[in-house]
Amino acid sequence: MRGKEMVKGKFITFEGCEGSGKSTQLRLLSEYLDKHNIPYVLTREPGGSAIAEKIREIILDGKNTEMCDGCEALLYAAARMQHLKDTVAPALESGKLVVCDRYVDSSLAYQGEARGLGMEYVGAINALALEKYRPDLTVFLDIPPDKAFRRKHGADKNDRMEMQGMEFHMRVYGGYKKLLAKYPRICAVECNGTKFQTHENIIALLKDKGII
Amino acid sequence: MRGKEMVKGKFITFEGCEGSGKSTQLRLLSEYLDKHNIPYVLTREPGGSAIAEKIREIILDGKNTEMCDGCEALLYAAARMQHLKDTVAPALESGKLVVCDRYVDSSLAYQGEARGLGMEYVGAINALALEKYRPDLTVFLDIPPDKAFRRKHGADKNDRMEMQGMEFHMRVYGGYKKLLAKYPRICAVECNGTKFQTHENIIALLKDKGII
Repeated sequence: MRGKEMVKGKFITFEGCEGSGKSTQLRLLSEYLDKHNIPYVLTREPGGSAIAEKIREIILDGKNTEMCDGCEALLYAAARMQHLKDTVAPALESGKLVVCDRYVDSSLAYQGEARGLGMEYVGAINALALEKYRPDLTVFLDIPPDKAFRRKHGADKNDRMEMQGMEFHMRVYGGYKKLLAKYPRICAVECNGTKFQTHENIIALLKDKGII
Repeated sequence: MRGKEMVKGKFITFEGCEGSGKSTQLRLLSEYLDKHNIPYVLTREPGGSAIAEKIREIILDGKNTEMCDGCEALLYAAARMQHLKDTVAPALESGKLVVCDRYVDSSLAYQGEARGLGMEYVGAINALALEKYRPDLTVFLDIPPDKAFRRKHGADKNDRMEMQGMEFHMRVYGGYKKLLAKYPRICAVECNGTKFQTHENIIALLKDKGII
């Protein structure tokens, strides 16, 4: 507390397609924050609190193949609201930096764009979350899925990707590109170099934006 | 099938505050439909299908006291979408009358009005449901909760109701009244007489609207 003013932490989110190296970059960022004694909470969606984990179980349960797209989008949004209340809000209020693996933009790109529910509808169901907890910065790891999969599996294994699967991931990528053009809080990080070069780009971005 | 036209069933929903006699009236209506050989499906929210029942468990689990209002509203909407796909849509497509105990209007009155999330937001998260499955008729059992509780428990036990509890139920009732003024598909049924008189009012309404 500074007088009656609460010291609020910063809220940053990481976004990217499958294979974009998000997990690796979050690990490297954690190591950096540890090394520089910057208090932070690393969390992820969906889940991150008791009720949200129960919702996560329903979303990810392989037996729930009959789940409709609308139900899926609403469950993600429900888990998000609870995660914000239980995990993100207390961390921000204690002045910590919150680093969240995926947030509303994932829903907009995956359910809104790729599944075809429409970004407007998915934005509407997430309006309360974004209104109260708009990220100070969203880091988008900008690598097209076809390139990411080649890098991950080697070009010779690329044919194992079902065409429909790749089309879906390309639609997700297209969704992210639309969001990038629309919201200044989202910043793309080029991922053409090594993982350490990408990490350095991220640290430079976070410094430039006054996050660290 | 009539040519290329599918014979679609009608979709009606029942709404009302706690103690309004909804369960009783749904039972009496079922008996009437059985007696007159009218094919129907009686279903309820939340639940009514395998995935929706799992969501129902989370919503109603007494241990989940920390659930935030936004999460609750989104879970109801998620269960609704799945229930529509799994139960309501197949019944309507087979030409049956679907009678549903609670629908979007419950969310608008309970979460939107009484919990204070706002009808606009709750309407937005339920937009897909209402767009595709707008009830042909919504029967609102119009009795204020304070009167309903007196009728149910007797006036001498009325003091057992916590004031906050009754205030909440009165806000729900106020929400229903707003919806009634706004949407012509919602019709109020007076519940001042006996349960049989109310039942007769409902049957008259259903005939008047061409439902049965």
